[in-house]
This record gives sequence, structure tokens and C-alpha cells, in this order.
Amino acid sequence: MRVAHFTGLRKLEISDEPEPKLDRPDGVLLRIDRVGVCGSDVHYYVGGRIGDQQLAYPATLGHECSGTVMEVGPAVTGLKPEMRVAVDPAIVCGQCDQCRAGRPNTCRNLQFMGCPGEAPGAVAEYRVLPAENCFPIPDSVSLEQAVLVEPLSVGLHAVRVGQIRPPARIAVLGAGPIGLSILLCAKVDAACTVYLTDLLDERLEVARQCGADWMGSAKAEGVTAAVAECEPQGLDLVFECSGDPACIDQAQQLLAPGGTLVLVGIPREPRVSFDLHVMRRAELTFRNVRRQTGCVAPIVRLIAEGRINTAPLLTHRFPLDRISEAFELVDGYREGVIKAVVDLSGAK
Amino acid sequence: MRVAHFTGLRKLEISDEPEPKLDRPDGVLLRIDRVGVCGSDVHYYVGGRIGDQQLAYPATLGHECSGTVMEVGPAVTGLKPEMRVAVDPAIVCGQCDQCRAGRPNTCRNLQFMGCPGEAPGAVAEYRVLPAENCFPIPDSVSLEQAVLVEPLSVGLHAVRVGQIRPPARIAVLGAGPIGLSILLCAKVDAACTVYLTDLLDERLEVARQCGADWMGSAKAEGVTAAVAECEPQGLDLVFECSGDPACIDQAQQLLAPGGTLVLVGIPREPRVSFDLHVMRRAELTFRNVRRQTGCVAPIVRLIAEGRINTAPLLTHRFPLDRISEAFELVDGYREGVIKAVVDLSGAK
Amino acid sequence: MRVAHFTGLRKLEISDEPEPKLDRPDGVLLRIDRVGVCGSDVHYYVGGRIGDQQLAYPATLGHECSGTVMEVGPAVTGLKPEMRVAVDPAIVCGQCDQCRAGRPNTCRNLQFMGCPGEAPGAVAEYRVLPAENCFPIPDSVSLEQAVLVEPLSVGLHAVRVGQIRPPARIAVLGAGPIGLSILLCAKVDAACTVYLTDLLDERLEVARQCGADWMGSAKAEGVTAAVAECEPQGLDLVFECSGDPACIDQAQQLLAPGGTLVLVGIPREPRVSFDLHVMRRAELTFRNVRRQTGCVAPIVRLIAEGRINTAPLLTHRFPLDRISEAFELVDGYREGVIKAVVDLSGAK
Amino acid sequence: MRVAHFTGLRKLEISDEPEPKLDRPDGVLLRIDRVGVCGSDVHYYVGGRIGDQQLAYPATLGHECSGTVMEVGPAVTGLKPEMRVAVDPAIVCGQCDQCRAGRPNTCRNLQFMGCPGEAPGAVAEYRVLPAENCFPIPDSVSLEQAVLVEPLSVGLHAVRVGQIRPPARIAVLGAGPIGLSILLCAKVDAACTVYLTDLLDERLEVARQCGADWMGSAKAEGVTAAVAECEPQGLDLVFECSGDPACIDQAQQLLAPGGTLVLVGIPREPRVSFDLHVMRRAELTFRNVRRQTGCVAPIVRLIAEGRINTAPLLTHRFPLDRISEAFELVDGYREGVIKAVVDLSGAK
Repeated sequence: MRVAHFTGLRKLEISDEPEPKLDRPDGVLLRIDRVGVCGSDVHYYVGGRIGDQQLAYPATLGHECSGTVMEVGPAVTGLKPEMRVAVDPAIVCGQCDQCRAGRPNTCRNLQFMGCPGEAPGAVAEYRVLPAENCFPIPDSVSLEQAVLVEPLSVGLHAVRVGQIRPPARIAVLGAGPIGLSILLCAKVDAACTVYLTDLLDERLEVARQCGADWMGSAKAEGVTAAVAECEPQGLDLVFECSGDPACIDQAQQLLAPGGTLVLVGIPREPRVSFDLHVMRRAELTFRNVRRQTGCVAPIVRLIAEGRINTAPLLTHRFPLDRISEAFELVDGYREGVIKAVVDLSGAK
Repeated sequence: MRVAHFTGLRKLEISDEPEPKLDRPDGVLLRIDRVGVCGSDVHYYVGGRIGDQQLAYPATLGHECSGTVMEVGPAVTGLKPEMRVAVDPAIVCGQCDQCRAGRPNTCRNLQFMGCPGEAPGAVAEYRVLPAENCFPIPDSVSLEQAVLVEPLSVGLHAVRVGQIRPPARIAVLGAGPIGLSILLCAKVDAACTVYLTDLLDERLEVARQCGADWMGSAKAEGVTAAVAECEPQGLDLVFECSGDPACIDQAQQLLAPGGTLVLVGIPREPRVSFDLHVMRRAELTFRNVRRQTGCVAPIVRLIAEGRINTAPLLTHRFPLDRISEAFELVDGYREGVIKAVVDLSGAK
Repeated sequence: MRVAHFTGLRKLEISDEPEPKLDRPDGVLLRIDRVGVCGSDVHYYVGGRIGDQQLAYPATLGHECSGTVMEVGPAVTGLKPEMRVAVDPAIVCGQCDQCRAGRPNTCRNLQFMGCPGEAPGAVAEYRVLPAENCFPIPDSVSLEQAVLVEPLSVGLHAVRVGQIRPPARIAVLGAGPIGLSILLCAKVDAACTVYLTDLLDERLEVARQCGADWMGSAKAEGVTAAVAECEPQGLDLVFECSGDPACIDQAQQLLAPGGTLVLVGIPREPRVSFDLHVMRRAELTFRNVRRQTGCVAPIVRLIAEGRINTAPLLTHRFPLDRISEAFELVDGYREGVIKAVVDLSGAK
Repeated sequence: MRVAHFTGLRKLEISDEPEPKLDRPDGVLLRIDRVGVCGSDVHYYVGGRIGDQQLAYPATLGHECSGTVMEVGPAVTGLKPEMRVAVDPAIVCGQCDQCRAGRPNTCRNLQFMGCPGEAPGAVAEYRVLPAENCFPIPDSVSLEQAVLVEPLSVGLHAVRVGQIRPPARIAVLGAGPIGLSILLCAKVDAACTVYLTDLLDERLEVARQCGADWMGSAKAEGVTAAVAECEPQGLDLVFECSGDPACIDQAQQLLAPGGTLVLVGIPREPRVSFDLHVMRRAELTFRNVRRQTGCVAPIVRLIAEGRINTAPLLTHRFPLDRISEAFELVDGYREGVIKAVVDLSGAK
């Protein structure tokens, strides 16, 4: 089968490998049909590492994927060959303290697809996964939409962590795939007014299509003041998705007393500073989110019911042999790219 | 009546004033019997300000108090002359968005006793307060214990915000009156193991009397490592009560994935920094607390039932005319002081 | 001023009374502009009692009202003459255990407008109310819409109690004003599919206008089976708003394991029976709701923003001197009545 | 190996069977050391059925058990031969909607040890179980104590469902093993005052040893009135553990507004009736509990730390060949039995 590998900085190569065998009774052999390019994939592509997670070349990659069941192990119920599935890329142990406490997203033995030293990446024609990681999709959901299930489930998890009560006042700072996922999920979670900022004007337009009520350029002087003028009592909830430390300060200024800041963006420098007097007087809450838990099935259902409009996010498609182009496009924020999807179905 | 005023840095004077008249139908005229000296009172005493809240001399002071009802307005139910009461020093409007959302502790029009520009301070023989700020205490609770109701209610509020699930692993960093209140309230909130650190050895001993399971000197190298050795999976909850930025970093290191850091201490410098990668990977939550809401009645009940042992906290007593000594003692952390109480009952 | 009184079974009389004086510093003198006819008003009209709450004739009546501020007491902030307001008809003491626990809707000393032995009813040209019961409405909300604030806030409270997580599966059994309010509020609370049943075909049509996804006649054999066929895994949440014991059994059958039944309807006979084996095996939760708390301000905002469409509910209008017609209409479920509103503005 | 079977009403026989083989990579071969006799086992023994779950003879039995790991499958981490374990008897699929929603206790494909048509019962020398059902116990916990982990975890689950806030007022109606487990777990969950009633005087004495603050005979006239006299504002929480419909009515009378009734006891007749007017006016919540989820690990820790005193519950021991005596004893409530434990360690 055809498999993609990182082989150096900004280097991606496709090579042949033997197909994996279904080797666990609770497992599924999947044909991978589509893989989405995530910002974290591009981080590895460009820099070879994220924080202290360092690639060893060659390395497989990718975790946003959809596929078709080829074979199921004897202990599997609910899945059959030919079923089309969305994939949860986090393979968890089910036995550690975190899993047993209902927090598998911080499983002590977590194997994430395409993370260095963890599980094989998704950009391969076939992969074996535990059945519990595969979520059947109905006919009304395409394999391409199913690629969005992972980032959207991260968005829904962030929204659940934030706990929206209608009619909420919300800001989303940063309109990349995760910021937009949060916007879409916030809108299905409760009646809310969403203020959104981004540096790229074309992303503001996508945000409008995704339902944002107010868009402002993060480059503009006074964008925070403009929001505050609309909402003099302050916002209930801010999702910081840009990773820009300046936005974290803006977020605190925007919040009403008792408000919540959900930190989603990943800053370049690990240390960020906060004004503790502001936080304390307003009794703010800061929440961090680590991927997701329990949100894949709801997202499949929300897409199937047409409650989440995935169209504005699916901007580009590439066959497997042009995967490098997809990475360069996403890295350069070019052509209004939100999500580039790699199509493995014609791989040979 | 006799009233204390700040008249300059480290200057406190007692003078005579006319007694207040009961001027509101929902109000109560109280004889103030005891007032506790809070760290924030000492901040004003020593520095004339807290953050941007600046004293204008002369200024009344004090907010931890107990008293006896002298007279009640016509709209008051549930209170009668001669009743002894604990006092909630936060007078709220009941009409703003925060009050209406069940968050009176961030009331937009809050008048706090003894805060510059807000309500008159408690160190006076008589004060008029809304009936809803007065909580009757049973015979089993002394007027001196009632002075602790305010700081203990702040402790219970912090504990409720932190949400302990038995058998929890907790750290309290800093064993001043609030840290010890949190310790006492954590122990009634759920079966938990509490690790406690402080710079002062005598406070570690008080913490032991208040039920701490493990005490360590915050001066010692490796105090964090020592806790981590006892709890290799990490802690569920850390209450940072020292205001020391180094402790905030320790707190993050101590927490298990999914853990919560409750920020209670007030650092000298408003800005503090956090390691966002640690926060994000472990999906930590940071909660701030602003005084308390809804915790006064439960604390009165917990003291009355003997579930909270107030004895270790009540270390010093002074008559009104020696109030300056009380302030100097607390400022100097001398003689093992935890809470110094000013007794107005013999004032003349 | 003109005031309506119940003077016997099915007897309503209008008479003249002196206008009330503003007699409390935290009070407001309101001109009452519109009053809605509630099912509970009709219960008193027809039967003279609800449960053990018995009318003593003559008795004032009404609690769903809107008005205009004429005069404010000296302690009032945030309200000024000429402001138009929606009214929360529950006057609470703020001092009992329930109020202090954040549950004013079960205040031990609650005075509800128009309840026998409690506060004067709303059908009068002027009333004095605490300022905290008056919620200003913006220009975009009419006085007539403001009459719906009370029943809609009951609906929002029920929805909050039920805790909807998208994409939820919900049933509302009974499409009277409260059932429809729940439907409208559920739709703003989260993306959800709502199944609705009622005995009256014209109410199913109103439900459709209010956003119901599926409507079925409660008279039909097999209506429960029809819902179950659409939702083989069961529903997350059922709101029983009919008061019919048969519907309570249906509700249990419809729920998925872990589901919640919110009991809103008032049955004729106080005792109802449940199948405890079904409840236990499926670990169901039953919640009761008592009017509302904290939902008036959000409802005003939701109406003002156009997120709740009140038009389908406002079916009939009567001047004060034809108030009996309004009651007869609502009692007979005639002419497709949902909410009949009495207009006092031309009273003389 | 030796295995017990129900072979008819009140008939238990021990016979020989081949030992099971470890046949799943995520499985564990356990030597079963101790099995507790549960009330539900006795229901099957005496009546051959519980509700619509009917025994087909011969049938294995038992689910409260502890054991020693003999062999582990290749996919197992965290367990090794010779480890002593407490057992969660609920084998879940991990793939259905309930499991994926974090509710494995209502798993659609649940196989419970010793339930007719589900998984083999625990009274056998060896059993194969999924590793995730086995929880290692430290040296400080005996195999006999480990038998109590299952009923205690049911108690902790009920307590979590009830959500105790200190200082809570609680009643536990019925002091069998589950009622006592709830009492023990309530006491570690938060500072609370527990009122307890039972028909058997000797159980009231055990309740005292387990920490009950007030005990009353359920046979006495006026037991409810006696509790109400102590708690005129009503209770926050009642756990109905007797299955007696009269107790359900008592429970409603005892609750304060906003209170919660947790239904734990299993009545003979499936239908029970409630007074909906009382429920509604007081805005009560009724919660059902289905076994437990996520409480096994916390219970192991609480026993190991000595926070739960298991001694009063462990009243009787029998070797395997005298298992019928154990069942007769529990059925007759004789000799003050709370929990009878069958010891398989000397089986031959």
C-alpha cells in the first residue's frame, strides 16, 4: 500500500509498504479514504517538532481521517465490512486513572495517530484501529465531511467546556479551522451572539458564512473597544484560538464578571502572562482544552442532520501524490484555505 | 460612639461620632461587638491602598465583625432586638445584571464595609446594615467565633468553586487565615488528603491542628518534589493562597491532568505568568474567587455543629483602644498570630 | 382606579378603588398596561381553588403583566418614570433559607400576585411592586409581548432544569402556553429535535410555527410508538405539560437510559403512579419545576433579539371591560386561543 | 474446578467443571477467592426471578467478588499474576450509545456476572474477565473487604447522584448493605447529619457504628414526625433504600424545597405512587440509580486509606460447601447478618 512519510523539514515522500494485518479481536481493518491537513501536521512539516515532541525521520503523519471498513475482528459488534466511518484518532488504554475517571483525552498511555512515537499516521491506504475509534456515518454524510469530524469534535468539546447559557455573548479570537469549528458548535449549542476576530480578511468572510454575528480585523486598532461598545456589560465567554498573547489580554478585558476564557490556541512561547487582579476581581475562570472526549458521535449526528454546515470549511482537495502542495498551501494561508483534504481513494 | 479611623500610614485613631439612625425599613441597627483584623485591613494600614483602591484619610475600616441587634426596621422579618449575628460585609444592590444572575459577589454597585468609597467600616460601636446581611447565631456560637464567619465563608466559597470529589488529593499553598479556612472547609466538604506548605513553621503547626495531613516548609528545596513523591499521579486540586508567583508554578506542576488550580492569594505584582503548554496538555482549569456568595449561613451552621474547629485560628484579642497593637502584630506575623480580634464591648 | 375581582364562580366584576401609594423606598408605582390570562387564573375562575389554595370573594387576580413606571422610591436605581417593564410576579423575602440558598422560587414567605392570601392581582390600573420585580424592556419589545415574559420564563426555567445537550431528542407533551414556551426555549437552548403531542389539532399547527419538528395527535392510538419508531434509542428529555397521567407513563416509555422527565403539567388528582422498575433500570431522573428563577432577564433579551418568536402565542386581545369573555374563551379552548391578553390602557 | 449452581427454588449445588481458558488478549484469568451474598442473589434463590429476569436451571450466581490474577492476556497493562483484585461485575461493550456517552452502567449490551442470560456468576474457582473489570487492591485491603467494593461503589454512586453540599441534612430509609453503604459514603462525601430508619433494631445499632447521627425504628408511629421535629426546614436529601412504598411517601414529606429523593430500594410491586402537588410545590427531584459507574477505584482507595470502616458490615463467613447456609441466613435476616461472605480459597 501507499504511505506518506515526513523525511525531513518540508519533505514528504510517498512509498510502498505491506498492508497491515488485522491482529486484534476488537480491531478493524480500515481503508483510509480521506485525510485532512491539520495545523499540527504543518507544524511538524515545517519545524520537525511541537514542544518537546520531536519527529524521528522517516515519520508517518495525519490524524483527521475517514475510511471504509474492510474487515472486523471477532469481538467487534456494530461494525461490518463496507461501512463508512469517521475516525477518532486517539487510541486510549481504558485502564489508567484518567480513563477510569472518564477523562480518556488525558489517558496516560494515549497513542495518537501520527504523533511521534505514538500510533501510525493516517496518510496510508490501510490502517488497523480499535473498533471503538470508528464511528459509522450515514449516507447523508460524505467521506470528505467525515474528515471534519475530528476538528469539529474538538470544537464541540471546547464549547461544552465553556458551558453556554442562552442568550450568551461570546467571542472567538482566531478563525482557523478550530476557531470556525467552535463558532459552528457554539451556534448549535445555544442561542448566542458571536463576535469574531482574525488577521485575515478572507477568514472573516468564512466566519460570516459560518454564522458569526460580528466580524472584526484583529489588525485593527481598537477591535476590543469596538466589541466592548456593543457589549458594555462584557462577554460571558471568550475562546482564544489565535495563540497570540495579545489576544489573551484582550480576552480578559472583554469578559464580564464570572466569565470564562477557554484557551485553545497554542502560542509560540510556552509562558504567557495574565493580569491576576483583573482575573480575581471579576472572578474569571480559565479553562484549557485537550483535544476532545465524547464529542465524535454528537458531531456525526449534527452533520447528518444538517445542523452544522461544513461547506465553508472544505476549501481544497488534493490526490495523495500532491500532498506536499496541500501542506505548502496550508502553511502559507494561501488561496483562502481553511481545510485541505487529501484523497487516497485513487492511490496506486 | 467610638469609631476607629486610619489617619495616615500606620496611624489609627479612635474618636467620637454620633450614633447612626436606623433609616431604612429593611435595615437593622447593630451594636458591633467584635471585629477581626484581616490581611486586607493591614494592607491599607501599611500602604494606604490595594491596587487602585486608595484611602482618603480619615477612613473607617474593618469588615469581619459580629454584633447584637438593637433595633429593626418595619420590613424586617426573622431578626429581633438582642439577637446576636454574624455579618456579611458585602451590601449588594439586588438589581444589576450580576445580582440577577446569582452572582452578588460581583455586584456592579457593591458596597463593602471598610473599602474606600464604599460602606462604613466595622470598627465602630454601632452600624446600620440591611437585614439580609445579618445572620443570627445560636447560643453555641460565640461573638468571637462569629468574627471568623466572613473569612471561613470565603474559604467555603473557594472550596465550592474547586469542587472536591472524595477521595481527593489537595494542596493548600499558604497557611494564613484564608489558607487555613480553606483547609478547614475542605475537610468538611469531602474526605480528602491535604498537603499544606507555608514559610512559617508555627503556621504549619496550626495547620496540623486544623487537620492537614502533610505539612512542608515552603522554604525547603524540593517541597514540590516531596509532595509529588507521595502523589505520583498528581493532585486533583491546588489552592494557591500565598500570592507568591513561584507557588503558582509549583501548583501547575503538582496537578494531575484535569486538575483545578484555585487562585486565592494576591500577588504584589498584578501580572503573573503560566506555562500554557503544561496547562493545555493536562487540560487544567484555573479558577479565581472573589470573596464569597451563599456561604455565610452554611458556615454559621458548621461552626454551631462543631464541624469546624475555630479554636486554632483565634489567637489574639485586643480592646478597641489597643487596636494599633493588633495591626502591628498581624503586619509582623509575630507571636504566631493567625487572627487578632478587636473587642468593642467595653468601648467608652 | 379600575380593578377586576372574582366575585363568585365564573363571575368577574370591575369596580373602582383608590390608587395605591408608593410606600416603600425600594418600590415602584406601576401603571399596569396589559395582563395575560393564565390557565391558573381560569382554574380559580371556574373552580374557586387550586389544590388547597381557596379564593375568598371578592378576590383580585392576574400575574402575567406589563406596565409603565410612574414613580420610583428613593432607594431605586436603574428604573425611572416612563420606563416600560415586564413584571416578575413573585415577591420574595430575600431572608429565608430558600432565598439565601439561591432558590427564591420556593421562598418561605413568597407573595405571588393574584394568589389567594398573597399579593394583589395584576388586573388593576396601578400596582406598587418592589423594583427588583420590574425588568425594563427595550423599544423593540411591545407591552403585549412583555406579558409573555412570565410564561416564557417558566419555560426557560424548565428547559434549564432539563439540561439539553445538542443534538438532543426531546418530547413536549401538551401544547398549551407553557408547553409552547418550553418548545420555543428548547430551540434557543440547543440544537434539538422536538416531538410534540396535543389533543387539539389547531395547537399542533401553532407548535409547527413555533419550531416543532414532529407533531402528533395525543388522541391517536400509537402516538408513542410513532415517536419510538423515529427514535429507537429513546429520547433524552421529555417535558410533560398536559397533566394527563397517561402521558406520564408515555414519557417513561419514550426516554433513553439516563433520560430526564420534567414534570410541568398539573394533574387533576394529586397522586400519580410511576413504574419504578422502568425508572430504575433506565436510571431516569424526574424533575419538578416551580415557576422560575433567574429567567426573566434572559427572556426579555431573547425576545428583544428576535430569537423567540412570540407572534404565534398572542392570539386574542380584550379591553378590561370584556375580561369575562377572555376567561370564557380560554376555559373553552375556543377559536384556537393560546394567550388572551387584557388591555387596561383604555380603562376608565 | 468447583462451581455453584442454582438448581431449583432454594436449591444450591456445587459441582465440578473444567477451568476456563484465557481466550481474549485484553482478558485476565482470575482465581476467585471470596464472594459476597447480595440481596438480589437471594431474590433469585427464593423466587427464581427478579422482575422479568427469570432463571433457567441450572444457573450460576454471584457478582460481589474478589480474586487473584493467575494469567493476563498480551494486551493487558497494569495487571500481573499474583495481584489481588476487586472486581467490577459489569462487563460492558464500550461501543453502544450509552457507553460512548459515559454511561456504561446502562450499556445496551451489558453482561452482568450471575444475571440470567448474561455473564457467568462469581461463585466458581476461576473466571475470565476483561482486565478493565479488575482493580488491584493494596496490601492494606483484605480479599474479604474487597468483596464489599461492589456494594460500596453502588453506595458511592448513589451519593454522587444525590450531590451532597455540606452541612447537609440527609435521611437513609433502610439499613441493609446498600443503605449502610450509602451512609458510609455520605459521611466521606461531605459533612452531613444522617437520619436513619429500619425495621430491625440490630441494624440500627450497626448504623450507629457506621456513623448515623440519629436512628429510629421504622415500625414506630411518628418516626417521620420525629425527624421533622429535629429538622423543621426539611431535609436536603433522602435515600429510599427499603423498597417500601410507605417510605417513599415519608421521603417526600421529609424533604425541604429543592430537595432530592434518590430511589434505591426495589419495591415488590413495580408501580408506586407519588403526590405530584407536593413534588411540584417543593420543586423536588427524583433520581434513580442503576448500579454504579466510575466508583470502584475511589472505593478501593477510600477503604485502603481507612476512611470507610468496613468492619460493621462483614458479619458472617462460610466455606463454599456451606453456601446454602449463607443464603438461608441472609434470607431470614437472622443473627444480625449484614454481609455473608463465601470463602472459595479452600474449595476442593
